[in-house]
Amino acid sequence: MNSFRFHNPTVLYYGKGQLQKHLAAEVKAYGRKVLLVYGGGSIKKSGLYDTVRNLLTDAALQVFELPGVEPNPRLSTVRKGIDICRTEGIELVLAVGGGSVLDCSKAIVLGTKYPGDVWDIFAKHIQPEEALPLGTVLTMAATGSEMNSGGVITNWDTKEKLGGGSPAAFPKFSFCDAENTYTVPRDQTVNGMSDILAHCFEHYFHATPETPLQQRLIESVIATLVEYAPKVLANPTDFHARETVMYCSTMALNGMISMGLVGDWACHGIEHEISAIYDIPHGGGLAIVFPNWMDNVVDVNPQRFAQLGERVFGVERNGRSDKEVALDTIAKVREFFGSIGAPQRLADYGIGGDDIQHMAAQAVRYGHLGNFKKLTQEDVAEILRNSL
Amino acid sequence: MNSFRFHNPTVLYYGKGQLQKHLAAEVKAYGRKVLLVYGGGSIKKSGLYDTVRNLLTDAALQVFELPGVEPNPRLSTVRKGIDICRTEGIELVLAVGGGSVLDCSKAIVLGTKYPGDVWDIFAKHIQPEEALPLGTVLTMAATGSEMNSGGVITNWDTKEKLGGGSPAAFPKFSFCDAENTYTVPRDQTVNGMSDILAHCFEHYFHATPETPLQQRLIESVIATLVEYAPKVLANPTDFHARETVMYCSTMALNGMISMGLVGDWACHGIEHEISAIYDIPHGGGLAIVFPNWMDNVVDVNPQRFAQLGERVFGVERNGRSDKEVALDTIAKVREFFGSIGAPQRLADYGIGGDDIQHMAAQAVRYGHLGNFKKLTQEDVAEILRNSL
Repeated sequence: MNSFRFHNPTVLYYGKGQLQKHLAAEVKAYGRKVLLVYGGGSIKKSGLYDTVRNLLTDAALQVFELPGVEPNPRLSTVRKGIDICRTEGIELVLAVGGGSVLDCSKAIVLGTKYPGDVWDIFAKHIQPEEALPLGTVLTMAATGSEMNSGGVITNWDTKEKLGGGSPAAFPKFSFCDAENTYTVPRDQTVNGMSDILAHCFEHYFHATPETPLQQRLIESVIATLVEYAPKVLANPTDFHARETVMYCSTMALNGMISMGLVGDWACHGIEHEISAIYDIPHGGGLAIVFPNWMDNVVDVNPQRFAQLGERVFGVERNGRSDKEVALDTIAKVREFFGSIGAPQRLADYGIGGDDIQHMAAQAVRYGHLGNFKKLTQEDVAEILRNSL
Repeated sequence: MNSFRFHNPTVLYYGKGQLQKHLAAEVKAYGRKVLLVYGGGSIKKSGLYDTVRNLLTDAALQVFELPGVEPNPRLSTVRKGIDICRTEGIELVLAVGGGSVLDCSKAIVLGTKYPGDVWDIFAKHIQPEEALPLGTVLTMAATGSEMNSGGVITNWDTKEKLGGGSPAAFPKFSFCDAENTYTVPRDQTVNGMSDILAHCFEHYFHATPETPLQQRLIESVIATLVEYAPKVLANPTDFHARETVMYCSTMALNGMISMGLVGDWACHGIEHEISAIYDIPHGGGLAIVFPNWMDNVVDVNPQRFAQLGERVFGVERNGRSDKEVALDTIAKVREFFGSIGAPQRLADYGIGGDDIQHMAAQAVRYGHLGNFKKLTQEDVAEILRNSL
């Protein structure tokens, strides 16, 4: 493994009733003026909005609101949030929602303290050392944003969707109660699970040598997700299944299974180019791109694919070469995405081939994309063509 | 899984050269007066003592010393350290050594700030809210003390060996460079690996329902340790193998593989009673006790044992019952401890049966011992008899 520094300071709460017991105290540790950030109103339907608001007002906290965060959160919304924080002297941002709401809130807490333009954090990879304190109440299993320091923001002026962050953006605390995911619609549940699996793959297909424990830890998350995804879809109010998938989402991207390795992240890069133009769900885009990326890169290290197939997907060796077992593994991955009803082709979102060269050029504009294999523009174009 | 709160704030450094790059800055963040705590002098032979001392003095830090921490660290030594900290106004304790040095240092940092008697922390399970800052430089893969908040101290006046701790005792930072473990003697290396495996087992054999991901994460550490233990013994200066075992030790007891479950810890309790009288190495005692504990408890949940055997130890089902597969698993565990040269019987330390009833009575003095199965005094006595 590589030398590494690991530090994840988020206080993580899992389980029913934790919010009622601990939210007010956690918030009050940072101040009295809270900006509540949320999305399109699903938390109002579910009752979570009332629960959170009452817990805050009962504790005599002053609550401001930023509703309407988009599924691919927009820079314009981030700017609105920063304005409120600066004008009102907000002391803590409380994000209540899924990955988009949390990512938007991270950009807000960083941007509020950053003297320059918040978009620099994404476009110029600035990592501000300061941020407003952030707390989160998670409503969807997907991005792992509840326990990491990064986020993804879309700039509609430049049609760019970029990741960024800073250690200062780790949530101070996150509440993860799987009951709050019961009402997530089926397609969003599927996209969330595709996102979780994609995070695991981004870690798993790395070129860092000598990472035996990390590989097994990642396989653990993949195996658990593959086992529990069908259970969640069969019974969306199965607490144990929902919580297990939520726990997979946290563990897939909190750094605990990927210490000392450099992940690939090419598929995320490619998906961001698709979403920047077509505004499709992130997890849906990843489910489409990943198997085609695998076809493109398998020869770099067929052993890694074969290992995944044998250890996780029940592929049998039967005296075959790594490459043969690897191809079976990729077939199993496709089969899994299909089995949970994830989109299989860009055509499922009505996307044709017109922008392939533009997207491919954008994807490699900072240099080759990925680490497991360093993709060229032509690699990206091929992956996109095979995804049509 | 159970509801849980997880927070592990330790900054973890792995790899060569991290100490040189980051130690001084990490220490200086907390003050200028440092108490260097270490053991029997092996760090002087290896050169690590000079390295650390020079890094501190080059940074104009004022260094005090507490050498001579014992393999089972003693309350009397803890008291010495507290005296130095209070008298000299120490601002950070830097533990350089293995688990004993780190555990002793945790008791010192807690005890210094605790107004009562430091032994209360262990005997009365007091968790002080304050502690002096603690940093560590690890020289042995075993206890995971570098990234957790607990420790074990022996009181020779009362012949008690007890665990205790507090969230305030998490190291602020820990440096883990596997090169610093090259000179660990073979028997201590084996005992360390036995301790790591024991920590995994204490987590794995739990009675908390619905923990599929946790089980797989624990299996990952066990599988990796079982694969790499022979490599370390074959070549003690194999950096990759030493680092992998070290990484297993950190992950086995930093809470990341055991969120939301209540571990068993009966074998640790039994081993502490043995060590409290006979002062044997902790890992050696665990290697002796664990297989005999397994024989005693297997009927509680043979499926868990069978799962471990099939997933990790290569035991084949061949249409057999869980119990039959479980018994094969226990045989494999015995075989593994034997294969690395761990002690197999209390007789290997010259221990006979005289104190069995006393140790058994002591082990259950706070009530039944363990969680997977709640052991009675007679269970403990049986396990000890079978360990003779």
